[in-house]
Amino acid sequence: MTTIAKEMKELARKGKKASRVLQSITHEQRKEILMAIAHNLRINKTDIKHANAKDLAAAKEMDLNSALLDRLELNDDRIDGMIKGVEEIAEQPEVVNSFSHEFTNEAGLTIKRQRVPLGVILMIFESRPNVVVDCAALALKSSNAIILKGGKEAKHSNEILGNIIQTSIEKFIPKETVQVLASDQRELVNELLNEKENIDVVIPRGGHRLIEFVSENAKMPVIAHYNGLCHMYIDNKADLKKASDLVINAKTQRTGVCNAIESLLVHKDVLNEFAPHITKELQAKSCEIRADKTFIESANTKLTEATEQDWDTEYLDNILSIKTVSNIDEAIDHISKHGSFHTEVIVSEDAENQNRFLNQVDASCVMINASSRFNDGGQLGLGAELGISTTKIHAYGPMGAEQMTTSRYVVVGDGHIRA
Amino acid sequence: MTTIAKEMKELARKGKKASRVLQSITHEQRKEILMAIAHNLRINKTDIKHANAKDLAAAKEMDLNSALLDRLELNDDRIDGMIKGVEEIAEQPEVVNSFSHEFTNEAGLTIKRQRVPLGVILMIFESRPNVVVDCAALALKSSNAIILKGGKEAKHSNEILGNIIQTSIEKFIPKETVQVLASDQRELVNELLNEKENIDVVIPRGGHRLIEFVSENAKMPVIAHYNGLCHMYIDNKADLKKASDLVINAKTQRTGVCNAIESLLVHKDVLNEFAPHITKELQAKSCEIRADKTFIESANTKLTEATEQDWDTEYLDNILSIKTVSNIDEAIDHISKHGSFHTEVIVSEDAENQNRFLNQVDASCVMINASSRFNDGGQLGLGAELGISTTKIHAYGPMGAEQMTTSRYVVVGDGHIRA
Repeated sequence: MTTIAKEMKELARKGKKASRVLQSITHEQRKEILMAIAHNLRINKTDIKHANAKDLAAAKEMDLNSALLDRLELNDDRIDGMIKGVEEIAEQPEVVNSFSHEFTNEAGLTIKRQRVPLGVILMIFESRPNVVVDCAALALKSSNAIILKGGKEAKHSNEILGNIIQTSIEKFIPKETVQVLASDQRELVNELLNEKENIDVVIPRGGHRLIEFVSENAKMPVIAHYNGLCHMYIDNKADLKKASDLVINAKTQRTGVCNAIESLLVHKDVLNEFAPHITKELQAKSCEIRADKTFIESANTKLTEATEQDWDTEYLDNILSIKTVSNIDEAIDHISKHGSFHTEVIVSEDAENQNRFLNQVDASCVMINASSRFNDGGQLGLGAELGISTTKIHAYGPMGAEQMTTSRYVVVGDGHIRA
Repeated sequence: MTTIAKEMKELARKGKKASRVLQSITHEQRKEILMAIAHNLRINKTDIKHANAKDLAAAKEMDLNSALLDRLELNDDRIDGMIKGVEEIAEQPEVVNSFSHEFTNEAGLTIKRQRVPLGVILMIFESRPNVVVDCAALALKSSNAIILKGGKEAKHSNEILGNIIQTSIEKFIPKETVQVLASDQRELVNELLNEKENIDVVIPRGGHRLIEFVSENAKMPVIAHYNGLCHMYIDNKADLKKASDLVINAKTQRTGVCNAIESLLVHKDVLNEFAPHITKELQAKSCEIRADKTFIESANTKLTEATEQDWDTEYLDNILSIKTVSNIDEAIDHISKHGSFHTEVIVSEDAENQNRFLNQVDASCVMINASSRFNDGGQLGLGAELGISTTKIHAYGPMGAEQMTTSRYVVVGDGHIRA
């Protein structure tokens, strides 16, 4: 066994051991632990920004695009946002150990379900360093130990956030409850994906290659948080004023996020009116358009022609691919081929078309006349989120603390035997 | 691509296509389809028994043990049981398409969750042919298409049941909604495990080797239904009369099933009284005992000594391994090393020990003073079951029709954009 293999085995084992200790802490203790993290983030703001500046400088040298730089940045507002998130999670009702569904069966046994943690969660993510704090807080809330492996772009930011968290929790619980791996060695991940004895689930959150790699190699269950190749379909029965506002918001309000749209599908009947208008609006927001020939003709201006690859590209940038469709079925078909089961939107005033879209589109969130940007845990009523699951099993859509648990059966008898 | 690879790709693709048609059937149609299956099972009883007799004859030639033969047999009672199960599922309330958790968020959007099917389920199972009927009915109830791959021992039985089901459903929905693979070619499974585009989840239900193989090779999510290496722990605070009844019931009431106990853990303080008594009782039921030295001494009779391997063996037969433990922690430790996350029982009148066991034992079902045989969907209030999941994610414990679905978000706005 290599040194790294040994280290990762040990790390997973310590995570498992910590997860057992976690099961006996009270709501008050949990709150105290989370508040300690919030406090230490607050008093270490300057150091956090200093570490983040190193990552930003390196990223600029590597010529990362503006959307990726935006994802990476930790400014005062964002650090305050993280702190507020932790405090909110601390105040929320307890998630684990509650009993439900209690009943007495025919044999006279008391049967109930108990909400229990998953155990040890391995999270592999790209870019945004705030993920470290959000996910550590959610793991503590749901009584799970967590191992966080971020991308190398955020190395210094992730490292300092991990240190602050461990320092905050170690007087209450084993510091290995939250372990952050800031090293960028791929071998670490390979080894961790073998540790099925001690890691209960792995959540990869990122692009195609990461998800594929983890799904192919993990020996434990995987809940994939794939990227958001989200579409908005403008129906022939759409209110074009609403459509225009929705496209601009869904594409340009924030571009480096998974719930921004990447592809716009436009019904041919509205092209003449809609194409010139939306082109102008998008260009006013500096958005780069890559469209099919039909759309470009109707837009009546020079635009880049989309290639086949564009329909499969999550730009995470201020770029939008646009395709003309002959009818709603062509739109649904395109989504079933190119969508990533994340967020899909129809803009239409017609109830029949809305329902057709709803019934035939498979995605964790289907929206009617609303911006895709609303698909996040906060907006959908879950509070803070670990990410957005595009795997159908266990959790489909935003995952909050509750989705980081499972339920088991508890049966209480008095010597009952089965007849 | 080999011929088998092509055939399996086509089979999965047809399953996916069928699953789309399923989404638009009504509760009444669903009931009619299930009742047609029940009817056709009833009028084809003789043929079913005839096919089953071929499997039983082959199994006897192969010298399968009595518990396995018992699992394989389809007699009148069992066929009637399958029919009754289908009829009950037909009468149960609708599972899919319902909306819940509806609320209006701050932005004024209507947000709700919709229960939706998983899509196409691949089920790989061993032995019991009734699984074909139970799982096909549950798949239809939950609007999923299903591909059922059974073991070669049950080849003829599975084949006829699959044919009866397809004949029953094909005038309502595509017959590929339920596809039964009776061939015993391993290559079929290899190919199906690659079909992640069209198969949404694979459920292996069986022993260690099957679960390992599927977990290592499947490209889609896996919900493992591992075997039941279930323990019963007799505490020093146990009521030994109850303990004796519980051991006999949990071990001998039916031996070829996953919720029978395989290992008994006995506190050393009760050995003198309990060992001779339970040995006599078990032997009266023809149960073979494999015990540690300490137990054998106390039992005061000649017994086979258990080897290390016994602690890891699911006999699925009338055999019980018995180990003496010095205290409850040793029992918990043994379970955490050798248990299969299925069903674990403590027999104790002491509330503190009951709670210690409950809090520290990780299993989909933890029981206090009750027979492990109660862990099934019917007894725990779920109705018919697909099997018992020992995977923590998605479903932990018995899986009924509801556990074969997921929920997604539906968001309805009127041009709402995110500020």
